[in-house]
Amino acid sequence: MDFKELDREIEFIVELDKMKSIFRQTSLINGTRRENDAEHSWHLALMTMILSEYADNKIDEFKVIKMVVIHDLVEIYAGDTFCYDEKGNMDKKERELKAAEKIFGMIPGKKGEELRSLWEEFEAMKTDEALFAASMDRLQPFIMNYNSSGGTWKKFNISKKQILNRIAPLKRSSKVLNDYAERLIEDSFKKGYITKE
Amino acid sequence: MDFKELDREIEFIVELDKMKSIFRQTSLINGTRRENDAEHSWHLALMTMILSEYADNKIDEFKVIKMVVIHDLVEIYAGDTFCYDEKGNMDKKERELKAAEKIFGMIPGKKGEELRSLWEEFEAMKTDEALFAASMDRLQPFIMNYNSSGGTWKKFNISKKQILNRIAPLKRSSKVLNDYAERLIEDSFKKGYITKE
Ligand SMILES: [Ca+2]
Repeated sequence: MDFKELDREIEFIVELDKMKSIFRQTSLINGTRRENDAEHSWHLALMTMILSEYADNKIDEFKVIKMVVIHDLVEIYAGDTFCYDEKGNMDKKERELKAAEKIFGMIPGKKGEELRSLWEEFEAMKTDEALFAASMDRLQPFIMNYNSSGGTWKKFNISKKQILNRIAPLKRSSKVLNDYAERLIEDSFKKGYITKE
Repeated sequence: MDFKELDREIEFIVELDKMKSIFRQTSLINGTRRENDAEHSWHLALMTMILSEYADNKIDEFKVIKMVVIHDLVEIYAGDTFCYDEKGNMDKKERELKAAEKIFGMIPGKKGEELRSLWEEFEAMKTDEALFAASMDRLQPFIMNYNSSGGTWKKFNISKKQILNRIAPLKRSSKVLNDYAERLIEDSFKKGYITKE
């Protein structure tokens, strides 16, 4: 056997290491530093294992886990765009499409195509799996902010309306998780983590 | 609905954040710092998605991914034990069993039991899935060491024999990956990343 295909796959696996140096706005709950994309993606995978039972419709948990594991790979080249950064979000789509070509193009054949199609499904946010994956992606920083006295909500003076808007996928995928999150938003308002309506 | 069960699950999800501060011996490939357990576990999940086709026997990829995602949770309380630390490995089992009680005990009912049983299966290293998960766990730092001029192999003057011993699960789960790794060991020896037989 020559290892030509495997060689390229290992190159991809080496490239993945860069995810550990792409930093998000959200800080660790202990406040020591910002979280990176690799940690974030791992956290979503475990959250999916614990919370998928709360999806309104029956979902393919395996697919959701694969989606959350790969959902941020494009950020290796496109960087993380802060969700409340309006300007950065204007050309986000274009930057991420280019990055997708590059990162998924590293893996030969069907496997590269599967990853790319998982990412496209995630981005389109139309299937139940994509909506649940998006919900995990929104709920995770939410939980971290709530558990660190407001985190980026407080730091950037984010309003209740902006947060509700951000967690909109929850409403479409899990009544239980959406109710839970709304309760925490009210509590955050009371506690002063959020000050603007 | 009261949120009693969900409250406990969210507490568990908050506790998971600590995995991002459990540091392993392996450094990032760019050499800037040591890798943490959350990043490591994420890397294994993606490696499984790419490499599971090389398993000698047909494996349940979903199960392997869940296993690698949770395999290090006990280290939140038991800490990381360096694989070449003989003394630390003497009481590792006992420390990790106690930690398992604590961490998996946080999640009520069937879900906590599923996680615990995945961890026990991983630890026992008897099923094809556990062997493949262990192979990912061994191959990942291996690839990182190879791609950073020897990494911890060089730092701790690890011998070829110790490394071969460490990657033994590969031999039992994937001929292709084992052959590939052995080739890299020979190359590392030539390059001086490993100097002891
Ligand atoms: Ca993102």
